[in-house]
Amino acid sequence: MAEKQLSELCKILSDQGFDARLEGKDCAVHAVNTLEGAKSGEITFLANPKYESAVAQTRASAVILKDDLDVPAGLSAIRCAEPYAAVTLAIITLHGYRKHPQWGKSESAEIHASANIGANANIAAGVTIAADVTIGDNCTIYPGCYVAEGTQIGHDCILFPNVVIYDRCEVGHRVTIHAGSVVGEDGLGYAPYEGKWIKIPQVGRAVLGDDVEIGANCTIDRATLGQTEIGSGTKFGNIVVVGHGTKIGKDCMFVGLVGLAGSANVGNHVTIAGQAGVAGHVHVGDDVTVAGQSGVTSDIKPGMTVLGLPAEDARDTKRVMAATKKLPALIKRLQALENEVKELRGKLEK
Amino acid sequence: MAEKQLSELCKILSDQGFDARLEGKDCAVHAVNTLEGAKSGEITFLANPKYESAVAQTRASAVILKDDLDVPAGLSAIRCAEPYAAVTLAIITLHGYRKHPQWGKSESAEIHASANIGANANIAAGVTIAADVTIGDNCTIYPGCYVAEGTQIGHDCILFPNVVIYDRCEVGHRVTIHAGSVVGEDGLGYAPYEGKWIKIPQVGRAVLGDDVEIGANCTIDRATLGQTEIGSGTKFGNIVVVGHGTKIGKDCMFVGLVGLAGSANVGNHVTIAGQAGVAGHVHVGDDVTVAGQSGVTSDIKPGMTVLGLPAEDARDTKRVMAATKKLPALIKRLQALENEVKELRGKLEK
Amino acid sequence: MAEKQLSELCKILSDQGFDARLEGKDCAVHAVNTLEGAKSGEITFLANPKYESAVAQTRASAVILKDDLDVPAGLSAIRCAEPYAAVTLAIITLHGYRKHPQWGKSESAEIHASANIGANANIAAGVTIAADVTIGDNCTIYPGCYVAEGTQIGHDCILFPNVVIYDRCEVGHRVTIHAGSVVGEDGLGYAPYEGKWIKIPQVGRAVLGDDVEIGANCTIDRATLGQTEIGSGTKFGNIVVVGHGTKIGKDCMFVGLVGLAGSANVGNHVTIAGQAGVAGHVHVGDDVTVAGQSGVTSDIKPGMTVLGLPAEDARDTKRVMAATKKLPALIKRLQALENEVKELRGKLEK
Repeated sequence: MAEKQLSELCKILSDQGFDARLEGKDCAVHAVNTLEGAKSGEITFLANPKYESAVAQTRASAVILKDDLDVPAGLSAIRCAEPYAAVTLAIITLHGYRKHPQWGKSESAEIHASANIGANANIAAGVTIAADVTIGDNCTIYPGCYVAEGTQIGHDCILFPNVVIYDRCEVGHRVTIHAGSVVGEDGLGYAPYEGKWIKIPQVGRAVLGDDVEIGANCTIDRATLGQTEIGSGTKFGNIVVVGHGTKIGKDCMFVGLVGLAGSANVGNHVTIAGQAGVAGHVHVGDDVTVAGQSGVTSDIKPGMTVLGLPAEDARDTKRVMAATKKLPALIKRLQALENEVKELRGKLEK
Repeated sequence: MAEKQLSELCKILSDQGFDARLEGKDCAVHAVNTLEGAKSGEITFLANPKYESAVAQTRASAVILKDDLDVPAGLSAIRCAEPYAAVTLAIITLHGYRKHPQWGKSESAEIHASANIGANANIAAGVTIAADVTIGDNCTIYPGCYVAEGTQIGHDCILFPNVVIYDRCEVGHRVTIHAGSVVGEDGLGYAPYEGKWIKIPQVGRAVLGDDVEIGANCTIDRATLGQTEIGSGTKFGNIVVVGHGTKIGKDCMFVGLVGLAGSANVGNHVTIAGQAGVAGHVHVGDDVTVAGQSGVTSDIKPGMTVLGLPAEDARDTKRVMAATKKLPALIKRLQALENEVKELRGKLEK
Repeated sequence: MAEKQLSELCKILSDQGFDARLEGKDCAVHAVNTLEGAKSGEITFLANPKYESAVAQTRASAVILKDDLDVPAGLSAIRCAEPYAAVTLAIITLHGYRKHPQWGKSESAEIHASANIGANANIAAGVTIAADVTIGDNCTIYPGCYVAEGTQIGHDCILFPNVVIYDRCEVGHRVTIHAGSVVGEDGLGYAPYEGKWIKIPQVGRAVLGDDVEIGANCTIDRATLGQTEIGSGTKFGNIVVVGHGTKIGKDCMFVGLVGLAGSANVGNHVTIAGQAGVAGHVHVGDDVTVAGQSGVTSDIKPGMTVLGLPAEDARDTKRVMAATKKLPALIKRLQALENEVKELRGKLEK
């Protein structure tokens, strides 16, 4: 961890284009922490207005926040229009990214003679690198990983422990895959035949672009034919499941427990919230947001925010959800009206 | 990969009972590929009418498809009433199934002296085989797998990397388990006692029949008492969760992220689509289909297709879903009618 | 397995405060089993009235059940007001908890020189213990586990195969983590910047209390700042996903495929059923029960049972669900009423 004066931190932020201004006295900070957890010598931040009242209680030495919010006496502040982005830079500056152990090429790794391992690669004990695999420069492969025959991994990648990549897949540069995730396993490809399932050889592969980050225990099927694709810059949470032949664009973000069926086609910069699903052969346009637990069963136009099962425009779905809650009362109103009409008919026919 | 003339491929299909006819000129093909991905020397197929327009653009040398569909000039066709089944056979013929590395019994595997390892078993480095385990002939156990005490695995099974099978379980013949899946772990078995949870020893086991295939990162609990059972021929996608004591029949297919609670009882040839769930102690009949994201909370009769939470006849649920969308408009209609009835009453009472 | 006379078993139950009485002849039993699976010499139980009819068919030598239920001639019974709790004690008495293999400190484990390993710790081949790790006394670490730099694990813990714990996390005493689970991986922490995602270093950690049990293939994020917390006595099923910075109280029980987004705050003794989710920054009070597949999107008061998306009082939601099913019929009634009012208006205006 580095230590910085608040004035230095302000300058670093300003140099990166933030309009950051120090308010209160200058002092050294060595770490970023939450409003509740921060101690003296640490800097905290307020980005979500829900937590505004916690600013008065924090024991931090400084806080990053917007202009129009109050700060108690004695607490220094860095004022900034975008506190979330500014604290990101503060964390990078004070803490940096995780350092990895340096194993070099462990003698207890099983590396096939035909594998091509890049410069400065860091391959732990208990890793298996199969025939004809390429691992790029500066990669770190943690214990228990298995990289199967013919797979190619670019430069500067990190595979956390127990990641498995099946044969003939391709991983771009600067890709991080968290522990226990599996890439390129066979999808559910069977042909029905006389009440049994005949396995279709899964001869395609899975291809991950550059700067992809995959959470823990995800599974990304290989394609039956052709390839499953995850576009550059896309980030997955944990336990995201991608079916065979599905194509996902660039800079998407999928939250935990999201599932995409086979041959789905998702555009760029799509956000899918937790436990939502996308059916097979469906096309989701660019910049779409899918709300949590929704089920996308038909094509979604670019830019839409969708909700529900089947997922439709979120405002429409919310209107329907609100109306649904009135349903028991509506039934009573309808019943009352039926009675009243009956009464009116009686009067009229008299 | 094998190379075949289209005429040879037609004969292979015919020999297997397909009514397959070559249309256009004969030529050699060495691979099957998608409509978009196929190159010259490859054969493609059209099974889903959604992709019919892609036939005109394909660069494949041949296409497998039904009789009544157009094929552009110069593209050879194999006409067949069941293109999906036929392409399965074409893939098996031209590509075959995955070949596995041959490690024999690796010296870096930890195999207990009391374990019984079959002929031609292929046990990788970093595998642990505990006491009293039986592994059948021709099995392939990839690195990082752990087979606990007393577990029995049949012939011709494949455990991909990092599969864990707990103690005293049983796996049939020709079973494939993909990377990271866990079989026989303890279920959520606790007795409540003064606000705490007392662990119930999970003394049952899990039993997988023959020809079962389990996707990646699935978890199949052992039973508290007795056994959890997966019937022969059943296939799981990735991240399928089976609770303790649950019994699943033969030739079922469960898609990714499906969860079955403990003591559920599922018949034969049941299909459960992605992210659907089955509650505990519920009985699902033979040949049932459960739609994606549905929740089965009570018994389902054989042959039904169910949808929704609680899951009911899919046609009924779709009717309700369609009606629900009209609800905001219905509320307006009801309001208007109430006003009208009030007006009529006014007129009538005047 | 121990063998006990029924009279001995009754005494053990009575000594623990159960009002247990033997009915029928005394005999030895050596195992507990299900009603269907039990054989002579085994004892079974009836806790769920759904299975009452199976008592007549059981081949067990004895059954544990409530007072008011019939038992066929020749079957001994232990009568007890709480058969589920009593059978738990019977299983513990006759079977005990799982015994673990004794590896000591395997020479094929990679244990960093700076790691502090407690007395009688049992560390298998293929385990990696990184720098500055503390492992308490009597822990069992199965093959393929990875414990990263600076993590502290208490006494009497069990890590089943292929568990991964990231750096600087903390695990209490008597904690069990099942195979393939991951603790302390980075959460989905990115700041958006010009259409790309900038990774926020995840400098917090994850902390598990005492007596926690985590199922297989779960993932528990570290906090971005501060800590993710799982309270003492809390139990997870398989594939439970906990987001970064989320705090979970004591003695909770979460079933399979449950997901909690980041910064959620869950009280003590909360039960969350399968496939349910909790949104970020939401507070769930003590003693809440969340029904399966529900989605909690706003704060829930202590003691409530909630259902649906958004999750609300379960009785209200069930009323709405029941009303929703009548909707197609309601639409017809509304249409009929509109026609009738039109007709009445016609008559009235004539």
